[in-house]
Amino acid sequence: MKFNEFLDNLSTYEPGKDIEVVAKEYGVKEIIKLASNENPFGVPSKAIKALEENVFKANLYPDDSMVELKSKLAQKYSVLNENIIIGAGSDQVIEFAIHSKLNSKNAFLQAGVTFAMYEIYAKQCGSKCYKTQSITHDLDEFKALYESHRDEIKIIFLCLPNNPLGECLDKDLVLEFIRGVDKDCLIIIDAAYNEFASFKDSKKHLEPKDLIKSYENVLYLGTFSKLYGLGGLRIGYGIASKEIISAFYKLRAPFNVSNLALKAAVAALDDDEFSKKTLENNFSQMELFKDFAKKYDIKFIESYTNFITYFFDEKNSSVLCEELLKKGIIVRNLKSYGLNAMRITIGTPYQNERFFVEFGGIYSMV
Amino acid sequence: MKFNEFLDNLSTYEPGKDIEVVAKEYGVKEIIKLASNENPFGVPSKAIKALEENVFKANLYPDDSMVELKSKLAQKYSVLNENIIIGAGSDQVIEFAIHSKLNSKNAFLQAGVTFAMYEIYAKQCGSKCYKTQSITHDLDEFKALYESHRDEIKIIFLCLPNNPLGECLDKDLVLEFIRGVDKDCLIIIDAAYNEFASFKDSKKHLEPKDLIKSYENVLYLGTFSKLYGLGGLRIGYGIASKEIISAFYKLRAPFNVSNLALKAAVAALDDDEFSKKTLENNFSQMELFKDFAKKYDIKFIESYTNFITYFFDEKNSSVLCEELLKKGIIVRNLKSYGLNAMRITIGTPYQNERFFVEFGGIYSMV
Repeated sequence: MKFNEFLDNLSTYEPGKDIEVVAKEYGVKEIIKLASNENPFGVPSKAIKALEENVFKANLYPDDSMVELKSKLAQKYSVLNENIIIGAGSDQVIEFAIHSKLNSKNAFLQAGVTFAMYEIYAKQCGSKCYKTQSITHDLDEFKALYESHRDEIKIIFLCLPNNPLGECLDKDLVLEFIRGVDKDCLIIIDAAYNEFASFKDSKKHLEPKDLIKSYENVLYLGTFSKLYGLGGLRIGYGIASKEIISAFYKLRAPFNVSNLALKAAVAALDDDEFSKKTLENNFSQMELFKDFAKKYDIKFIESYTNFITYFFDEKNSSVLCEELLKKGIIVRNLKSYGLNAMRITIGTPYQNERFFVEFGGIYSMV
Repeated sequence: MKFNEFLDNLSTYEPGKDIEVVAKEYGVKEIIKLASNENPFGVPSKAIKALEENVFKANLYPDDSMVELKSKLAQKYSVLNENIIIGAGSDQVIEFAIHSKLNSKNAFLQAGVTFAMYEIYAKQCGSKCYKTQSITHDLDEFKALYESHRDEIKIIFLCLPNNPLGECLDKDLVLEFIRGVDKDCLIIIDAAYNEFASFKDSKKHLEPKDLIKSYENVLYLGTFSKLYGLGGLRIGYGIASKEIISAFYKLRAPFNVSNLALKAAVAALDDDEFSKKTLENNFSQMELFKDFAKKYDIKFIESYTNFITYFFDEKNSSVLCEELLKKGIIVRNLKSYGLNAMRITIGTPYQNERFFVEFGGIYSMV
């Protein structure tokens, strides 16, 4: 059978290994997964309650107006419901953005190493990709590349803080950069981890209201998968001008998010205790990961997220990750990003201690 | 901001009214929703148990290999895991199919009145739509249209049984039709309601294995939203040749289905008692809807689904639906399909009795 030609250039996404699958494969009993930047404290208790109360309604289609969650987000961010679109993860909002702006005649711009899905989705549109030489976000390079291809570039991705590296630009520099970009170029601020960056350093904090009121070409992306502990439910959102949101709505399939996800997200936004505990644990435990790196002379970038990325010189990240797997610890090997590095999610004190003990042993041996 | 031109031709989907929203609007206490063909008995108890056991894991990303559910379906249908793709509702598999085959230079073929999403998704690809004059599936017309536009038509939709009308073609006629279609034309058998048709009449039963083993260009679609009572969780599947499934996989975003949906679907497949109760209630209650129609001289098509569609001559379906809403009963007005008709989901005996009492009163008055 013949398929549309653009499929020829697409490859299939290879999923990471599932905990249960790994456990079976390696015959280990306890698996510690520090690979996907999930919340190590599980699900907020208010969200669990909401889920338990609503499992009996799983037969009913979701309220496709999503008014309850939109109103809650609108209130939190002081924007209008019309400025918000809910996606099956913020991923899906990235997909809407890409399909609404990119095509085979234009291009997008991103950091040298950043969230892999930008490029994967954009490939579906046959759009050209410009990347900075720098793996982290270097705004001078962004500016130079944008100036050279101003007519061509229709989306600029800024991942703030950046996954999978962890660095984060200051808000003031971001705003200055935005001002230099044409109004017809969509600037996507991927703020999936911004709550972590904001907690650590207020200079990194990005307020959707300020962005979209001043800049009609900015899309702010948030997610419930990280701080809010709902990665399994696939729910995130985009905030932008009504014009942008209306365009995205044309690409949205009805009922794109489950009713349980909607209920859990509303409840999670109210669980301040859970968020506080997550953020405090994250950055106090982050110090231990920095100390560990220093002790073993491992390079790392200062992280504003819920993970830390270790870079290796002589040792091979693939070997190190494989050895960790044998001990039941899953981290993210960054070989597929062209880096000899691994990304480790900051876990609970217990999980991290297990990592330090096992990885210390492996690192000295390998 | 300028968006890709194809967006100009798209309109935004208008969602149906949510139960809670209607309740508030009309100030009615008890709402009976017979509008979306949801399972009136709620969620299978085995699925509820699976959900309750897994709410604590909602922070963890789904197993993106979906091996557990795929294996279960593979076993049920005697096909291979590689013949299966899981979607956020079978809707999403329709989307994959359309994007992989349709473009602005080709066309698709469907019944005069059928599931609205085929046309909505296909519009995104700028593809031409051929419809039969007959509102229900008329295979002679399908054949004639296909013969006249053989080179152009790349997808044929057969909704078996048909939503929103309820009629269903016999398997033998379907197979004969398939044999006359070129191998490069994808035939989509939308079997969302086929369990209902099969229960009523074994001549309507379509077995995915038989279809895909004999015909490499057939895609079978199933859903957990109807018989299996999981409409709110957004989960369905497609079964086809490995070649077709591989093409669709290129368009699938990772983690396109939530972990709770995957767990609930596996459990729902095991809940035979729930399925049996649903099917038996559906067709015994269907008789009452037929009796009611005869009593009031309302036309209907024999239904092989979990709904029945009433057609009106002088009375206006919009007025009738509005009057029912005031009584707290939501049914589906088919005006947007160009029909003076309403689609009513077969509910529980209690719900149906409420419908008969209220609608009887309204019908005589209006």
